[in-house]
Amino acid sequence: MQNITHQMKAIAPQMAASSHQTRQNALTAIRSALNDNKDSIFSANTKDLSRANEKGLSDAVKKRLLFNEAKLNDVCAGIDQLIALPDPLGKTDLCRGLDSDLTLKRISVPIGVLGVIFEARPDAMIQIASLCIKSGNCAILKGGSETMETNAAIFSVIHEAALNAGLPELCLFQADSHGQIDELLACDASVDLIIPRGSNSFVKYIMEHTSIPVMGHSDGICHTYIDASADPKKVIPLVKDAKLQYTAACNATETLLIDRGYPKALLDELISSLSEAGITLRGDEEMTGLYDNILPLTDKGYTCEYLEPVLSLKLVDGVNEAVDHINRHGSHHTDCIISEDEGVTDYFMRYVDSAGVYHNASTRFADGFRYGFGAEVGISTGKLHARGPVGLEGLTTYKYLLYGNGNIVGDYSTGKRQFNFKEL
Amino acid sequence: MQNITHQMKAIAPQMAASSHQTRQNALTAIRSALNDNKDSIFSANTKDLSRANEKGLSDAVKKRLLFNEAKLNDVCAGIDQLIALPDPLGKTDLCRGLDSDLTLKRISVPIGVLGVIFEARPDAMIQIASLCIKSGNCAILKGGSETMETNAAIFSVIHEAALNAGLPELCLFQADSHGQIDELLACDASVDLIIPRGSNSFVKYIMEHTSIPVMGHSDGICHTYIDASADPKKVIPLVKDAKLQYTAACNATETLLIDRGYPKALLDELISSLSEAGITLRGDEEMTGLYDNILPLTDKGYTCEYLEPVLSLKLVDGVNEAVDHINRHGSHHTDCIISEDEGVTDYFMRYVDSAGVYHNASTRFADGFRYGFGAEVGISTGKLHARGPVGLEGLTTYKYLLYGNGNIVGDYSTGKRQFNFKEL
Repeated sequence: MQNITHQMKAIAPQMAASSHQTRQNALTAIRSALNDNKDSIFSANTKDLSRANEKGLSDAVKKRLLFNEAKLNDVCAGIDQLIALPDPLGKTDLCRGLDSDLTLKRISVPIGVLGVIFEARPDAMIQIASLCIKSGNCAILKGGSETMETNAAIFSVIHEAALNAGLPELCLFQADSHGQIDELLACDASVDLIIPRGSNSFVKYIMEHTSIPVMGHSDGICHTYIDASADPKKVIPLVKDAKLQYTAACNATETLLIDRGYPKALLDELISSLSEAGITLRGDEEMTGLYDNILPLTDKGYTCEYLEPVLSLKLVDGVNEAVDHINRHGSHHTDCIISEDEGVTDYFMRYVDSAGVYHNASTRFADGFRYGFGAEVGISTGKLHARGPVGLEGLTTYKYLLYGNGNIVGDYSTGKRQFNFKEL
Repeated sequence: MQNITHQMKAIAPQMAASSHQTRQNALTAIRSALNDNKDSIFSANTKDLSRANEKGLSDAVKKRLLFNEAKLNDVCAGIDQLIALPDPLGKTDLCRGLDSDLTLKRISVPIGVLGVIFEARPDAMIQIASLCIKSGNCAILKGGSETMETNAAIFSVIHEAALNAGLPELCLFQADSHGQIDELLACDASVDLIIPRGSNSFVKYIMEHTSIPVMGHSDGICHTYIDASADPKKVIPLVKDAKLQYTAACNATETLLIDRGYPKALLDELISSLSEAGITLRGDEEMTGLYDNILPLTDKGYTCEYLEPVLSLKLVDGVNEAVDHINRHGSHHTDCIISEDEGVTDYFMRYVDSAGVYHNASTRFADGFRYGFGAEVGISTGKLHARGPVGLEGLTTYKYLLYGNGNIVGDYSTGKRQFNFKEL
């Protein structure tokens, strides 16, 4: 792995300098090759599924492992979206004259060599490889072992198509054994960024076992706050969607905060409705005292990420307490206010310190596709570099180009010449 | 320290929501207060200087410790520049309709709680505190112990002025004992970013002893490459400036690469000139064989950061070998080509993977002030978040604000509604 990433680092500048047309051609070729080779991919997937059956994996897991015509169509639609997006590289976001003959430009460039470790989902391999190619990054890809047959089939199709389009051989490399993860984490001289996807404990393991920068998120403790001014017609659909639309997702709401000023009759109706929808409700003593169908909190209190149809509830004294609770107990992922009061909403939007702060919209919208990024490599709850859903832009950095005419600093420090800053 | 940073994290959203006017008032008040209290600051500095004399510190160090009228004027000019810059917060860099009643905005916000550890230079305390205030960040400031008296005097003046302008008490906190550095590194629950400045070994120590993200740079191995097409009139002044203008700086050139096609007579002249300027020249066997006044390389070969008037030299076969050498042996800081050939220059600018890539300009220009950023908290050789000189912008991140009307993801995933992306 050291050897591979070392070579990858050496060719990364070549990948960075590849033309947009070459990268677009690669994406188009990948799209065609996936369709041309779908039978062999589906048959590889059948092997993975039968192994999953032998192991007695749950239906939910098997649903994710499955790669069929419908999923192929979805990923091809994703590739089309990516092709339609402008080149993320070479964008000039600063052009400043420092003096009459000295010009500074800042242009976007790829990060370089990425290591992406992702869950057993064949579509993830295709999305991630496409994002890396469009953004001019080289990448080591390691998918979950439950889809190893499908991964191998998909990778060879993608890799061959990328090479035929003119990209360098080591633009992508598939790591296929679990032991290679630790090897990858040790390649700090060649790998610029690790992006782990998976369980909290897995992401934490990665963060603790490498000195390479890691972009990812550990917890997804998202909140929905119902203000006294909330429109009752919006409340129940929003809360149900935020909790139930896909409970295993990091952007599902885990805690519902309710303003004490929200009418009791509406609260009663909400509690019944959530309970009837199959949600297990948990709360502090005040909540369990109010409703028989609310259970006590778990040991984790209000910092529990259930990832199941379970919801923590708490009454708060208005938006101030809601914001304090969220900033203290949340994971700075995505939090929503349901409100019709502009001042209260504005306070919430300004003071909540999260990657996503929503007004009257389900926390489930926190997603690269829904943000119009085409796809995402993951969601970041870190504050540095990329925050929230990470698409093409999060896979780029920049470099400063300075064009001079023999300019020396000595002339400026002695006062012989003066800087003359001017935006160009 | 845990307690302080915990409280700081709690008030960080308040600091983030402070108006630009309040932060500007604070900077104006700091500028006045520094002038009003200059006598007590200068007298504190005299104590530091006499302790430095007792310890027999070098003149170069004492020059940095000194805080006098001239240095006060310089930092006040820096504060004026910072005041003149626009508010770095609340800038919308993305505004997209996801649907007719669902709008996504991305706005700049402060990072939150910073820990800045810097060398013994009284002006650094003022620059860093000003940058943190203007960018709405809370900060723990720890300066070098050699200027502890001056630091204490300056901090109390700055802090009082900031509070009088209406900023929260814990917007800034001064750590004054060395033991507090390790305490700070353990505050991973409250501190968002550590910015260490100082020697390579110190920065490495910080990186290895915290799980908080660190922004900094370890090595500054900068190159200047002389192409065969270089204008000889530019060569000697550029190389001398890049090496000698301030040898202790990370952006000083450490290695000079010379195209084998560069005329021998001009190379002879260059070597003599550099030698006469007091630069110790080192090189591989080819170079030492060519010139008597070129010594062998040290054990570190071409990866040595001398920080002294010493320069490594190497002949290369044109721009390709120069770029390969830089990407392999450099530290991705700042590298320059001296050339009059557009194609060769373009190749260099594209293929060199460094934070700064320069054409006909001294590597010494890599500096926040010279880039027009007003000031810098440091220079980053990392590729994530901020690269190169880090000013106000590098101290901000962003959050996504989503404004809806009760929108739920279920409607979009079932096909009842479709996304309708539109840049606004």
